[in-house]
Amino acid sequence: MSDSVSRFPVVDLEDLPDDLRERVGVIAEKSGFVPNIFRALGHRPAELRAFLDYHDALMERSGGLTKAERELVVVATSGANHCTYCVVAHGAILRIRAKDPELADRVSSNPWQVELDERGRAIVDLALALAQDSALFGEGDLEAARNSGLTDDEIWDVGAITALFAMSNRLAHLTALRPNPEFFLLGRVPR
Amino acid sequence: MSDSVSRFPVVDLEDLPDDLRERVGVIAEKSGFVPNIFRALGHRPAELRAFLDYHDALMERSGGLTKAERELVVVATSGANHCTYCVVAHGAILRIRAKDPELADRVSSNPWQVELDERGRAIVDLALALAQDSALFGEGDLEAARNSGLTDDEIWDVGAITALFAMSNRLAHLTALRPNPEFFLLGRVPR
Amino acid sequence: MSDSVSRFPVVDLEDLPDDLRERVGVIAEKSGFVPNIFRALGHRPAELRAFLDYHDALMERSGGLTKAERELVVVATSGANHCTYCVVAHGAILRIRAKDPELADRVSSNPWQVELDERGRAIVDLALALAQDSALFGEGDLEAARNSGLTDDEIWDVGAITALFAMSNRLAHLTALRPNPEFFLLGRVPR
Amino acid sequence: MSDSVSRFPVVDLEDLPDDLRERVGVIAEKSGFVPNIFRALGHRPAELRAFLDYHDALMERSGGLTKAERELVVVATSGANHCTYCVVAHGAILRIRAKDPELADRVSSNPWQVELDERGRAIVDLALALAQDSALFGEGDLEAARNSGLTDDEIWDVGAITALFAMSNRLAHLTALRPNPEFFLLGRVPR
Amino acid sequence: MSDSVSRFPVVDLEDLPDDLRERVGVIAEKSGFVPNIFRALGHRPAELRAFLDYHDALMERSGGLTKAERELVVVATSGANHCTYCVVAHGAILRIRAKDPELADRVSSNPWQVELDERGRAIVDLALALAQDSALFGEGDLEAARNSGLTDDEIWDVGAITALFAMSNRLAHLTALRPNPEFFLLGRVPR
Amino acid sequence: MSDSVSRFPVVDLEDLPDDLRERVGVIAEKSGFVPNIFRALGHRPAELRAFLDYHDALMERSGGLTKAERELVVVATSGANHCTYCVVAHGAILRIRAKDPELADRVSSNPWQVELDERGRAIVDLALALAQDSALFGEGDLEAARNSGLTDDEIWDVGAITALFAMSNRLAHLTALRPNPEFFLLGRVPR
Repeated sequence: MSDSVSRFPVVDLEDLPDDLRERVGVIAEKSGFVPNIFRALGHRPAELRAFLDYHDALMERSGGLTKAERELVVVATSGANHCTYCVVAHGAILRIRAKDPELADRVSSNPWQVELDERGRAIVDLALALAQDSALFGEGDLEAARNSGLTDDEIWDVGAITALFAMSNRLAHLTALRPNPEFFLLGRVPR
Repeated sequence: MSDSVSRFPVVDLEDLPDDLRERVGVIAEKSGFVPNIFRALGHRPAELRAFLDYHDALMERSGGLTKAERELVVVATSGANHCTYCVVAHGAILRIRAKDPELADRVSSNPWQVELDERGRAIVDLALALAQDSALFGEGDLEAARNSGLTDDEIWDVGAITALFAMSNRLAHLTALRPNPEFFLLGRVPR
Repeated sequence: MSDSVSRFPVVDLEDLPDDLRERVGVIAEKSGFVPNIFRALGHRPAELRAFLDYHDALMERSGGLTKAERELVVVATSGANHCTYCVVAHGAILRIRAKDPELADRVSSNPWQVELDERGRAIVDLALALAQDSALFGEGDLEAARNSGLTDDEIWDVGAITALFAMSNRLAHLTALRPNPEFFLLGRVPR
Repeated sequence: MSDSVSRFPVVDLEDLPDDLRERVGVIAEKSGFVPNIFRALGHRPAELRAFLDYHDALMERSGGLTKAERELVVVATSGANHCTYCVVAHGAILRIRAKDPELADRVSSNPWQVELDERGRAIVDLALALAQDSALFGEGDLEAARNSGLTDDEIWDVGAITALFAMSNRLAHLTALRPNPEFFLLGRVPR
Repeated sequence: MSDSVSRFPVVDLEDLPDDLRERVGVIAEKSGFVPNIFRALGHRPAELRAFLDYHDALMERSGGLTKAERELVVVATSGANHCTYCVVAHGAILRIRAKDPELADRVSSNPWQVELDERGRAIVDLALALAQDSALFGEGDLEAARNSGLTDDEIWDVGAITALFAMSNRLAHLTALRPNPEFFLLGRVPR
Repeated sequence: MSDSVSRFPVVDLEDLPDDLRERVGVIAEKSGFVPNIFRALGHRPAELRAFLDYHDALMERSGGLTKAERELVVVATSGANHCTYCVVAHGAILRIRAKDPELADRVSSNPWQVELDERGRAIVDLALALAQDSALFGEGDLEAARNSGLTDDEIWDVGAITALFAMSNRLAHLTALRPNPEFFLLGRVPR
């Protein structure tokens, strides 16, 4: 087994343009390492920049879904899409955000039937309906979400995050992106 | 049949923040109308901004694929994903870019078997492999692309555009986005 | 890209047996060209004759579905089956019959979610249920159709047309049948 | 369990128009019973007539595939399509034509892997490629058939019979057509 | 066509360890032949022993489902899984247990839509939900079964038999297991 | 979220028949806890006994695959089948057996493309071919395995373990079996 991070060129933090180096540097400092996705997208700075912007617009947005719920959408759809990088990396973040050491593995291994409360189930059902066979997505999916109490603003959050990670999962599959070893253990033991 | 553009709030050009109004305004001037995708995403300016940035980074990039080839990727994967907005809107652009009034309909209705030259076929095969069942995407797909003469830079273009429209198609399905009437006819008759 | 009409032998109008030459001639005169399906099936006159008889029995039948509705069934199921010839050729006829320049593209690109009135939706849902995974077709599909007001005579029309084009789509896929250029533009601009 | 033959009106032999009564009568005399498909289609005589014509043009054609091979195509694709009527009725005919009491059950239960000689395997592979996911049918399928020695005339036979039974299977699913009891035992014991 | 029973080593009754020889011998005496599954598994006696134990624990259990209902589960799921050996062998047993010469062929060719009474339909629906796409199996499936009157003990029977034959079908596919000729005719004619 | 172990009755160690209590007791002593699968199957002692026998015959067998390779088959197919219990429980065992804290998550999230050495890849490819769409399993799958150096004895191991966990995964889906909390962390940190 090779140690390569990506099938395509990978950049180090110091090789990034100033704005991206600073921006990714903040994340690296907080995590203690540079998540591989940034090293893999970095050889195309304009794309990495747009990716970070889109990511922050949706994942750091205030209002709407909680941060744990946003990660729930990511882990559920990435599990359904069999995206190893996103399952492992965002699984770690979900464990931390939800303060639950089991949730990520249970959601990613079977998002369709994992036991969740009604709101969690509505979020995941909506996300899965759009993540897969999205041509079938319709009014019935929206109605079910609304009946479980999701607002239209929250529905947009679920839908847009699902869409963003439909892209993200495919970038990870394109590059055979390898999760940083640190992600596997993050959030598994109470600190 | 209703005339609504989206299931969610829609904005007019003049309601967009300055930078977006100007940016979308340039497109609107060139096309003669405001493509509905911008009106549908506009109620979340940060997301529209990131979308435009990502789009331009990939679709306006110099080097790598030609502009017609970039649209070929969009129409093939949007056809496979059954995304009406992207098939109709980017079908129009493909007709114009490829100067071919039939290509878009032939690609979108059956991207798997549409007759293309070897390079076109390699581009579409690669795109389809990543657009659908992307968990199966692997070295074999890259090898086939390289054997048909695609460079790694071009392969990234195909992969990243496919990924972007995996997102874009899902945003259109989320919103039930309706194509502007103008798109249906663009590029069908020689001007 | 080659100009070939079919992977198999193709006949010209004048090479057909008398009865077929006359019959196809009438169609050619009305359209201004000989639709390629007739040239592709013509090397087996007995099969072309049965095809025309079956087609006319269902598509020219009086009573039951309107002619536009019959074409709606064809375009929806051919879209689901990714049959380029039938999507392009019957898309043209649907535009003309329904006097709607957008409907065919919207139905063929996503028959599952295209916005239709209740009767149109019931017709398309029934057709799709039988076109794909037809082993699952059952009482529930019939009940839904009846609840939307379709009579049993109309249900048979929908089912039998769907069945006929399950055949027709496969003949087009067998032959890689190419649509006549004229079909792409027919019915797009008001005359 | 009801005894009904079809979900739609059923006719008796004597209620058919003269030409059809005579034609179906010949079959009934030979078999000892009126196959239910004719009683189920008979309420629409023009459709039954076209069906019989198409059937005879393909199944009674001299040259090309043998009669047993034609039934092999029917049983393989009807098995893949889970069509009970066609599996049972044409299974009986295949047993008789191939003089093999096991072949029909083995082909219909798993057409993809049933052990056949090279020619039989080529015929069934070609038929299955067109019967299911026919949008993917392409040059590779034709090449494989030709490499196993099938002529283009035989390939057309396989393709056209597959297409005809794509229709026929759907008519049986539409009507929930029940096989005549006689079919279950025909050809199972040497006479 | 070869006569081989399995792709892997096959044992004769007299080569089995004493306990298995006796146990399989009883079955052989009753049937008049040694069912091929025992000859194919016999080269791994510990596995054959566990297989027989599991089989008897579920198929010979008193209480819960009737013996005919247990075979109904086997034939329905083996039909859905396209397992020739199990369809043919257990089809014979179902014909005998249900005293119905048609039921097995009708269930195996289309388990989703075969006409059954309410209890039979509930059993088959539950079995199919677990046999295929089992990740989607959930509370809704259990509720439907309970609403049709199945007890939890009977539900376990259906589920566990379905699970056992998910294994059994795969062993038959692994070995290309050939049904004994006797099975094809058993139970077809009243004795 | 409830804490329930199974949808069906659950037994405690001390409620099991003597032989099973002793047998499961040994496992519990070694692990420090009673794996939930035994508590969930224990209300049907004959089935639990056969399950343990089959499990041991395949997973504790000497010769053929290594113990880590046997767990690789389990984790790969349980990942493909989205079986949370087996992914989490056998993921833990795989981490321990392979002395690799990352392998289980990488295999279970995407068994089709996880990077493995040639032998590992051959084992997983063979297992996946039989786990899913097993009707398509054929000579080509065996040849590929043999070409990568697997013996027929090893191929049987892969196939039989895959078959056993096709059953096991379905029992877990039937019961909504919940993994013991201990499994999530086992083998993640060097001891």
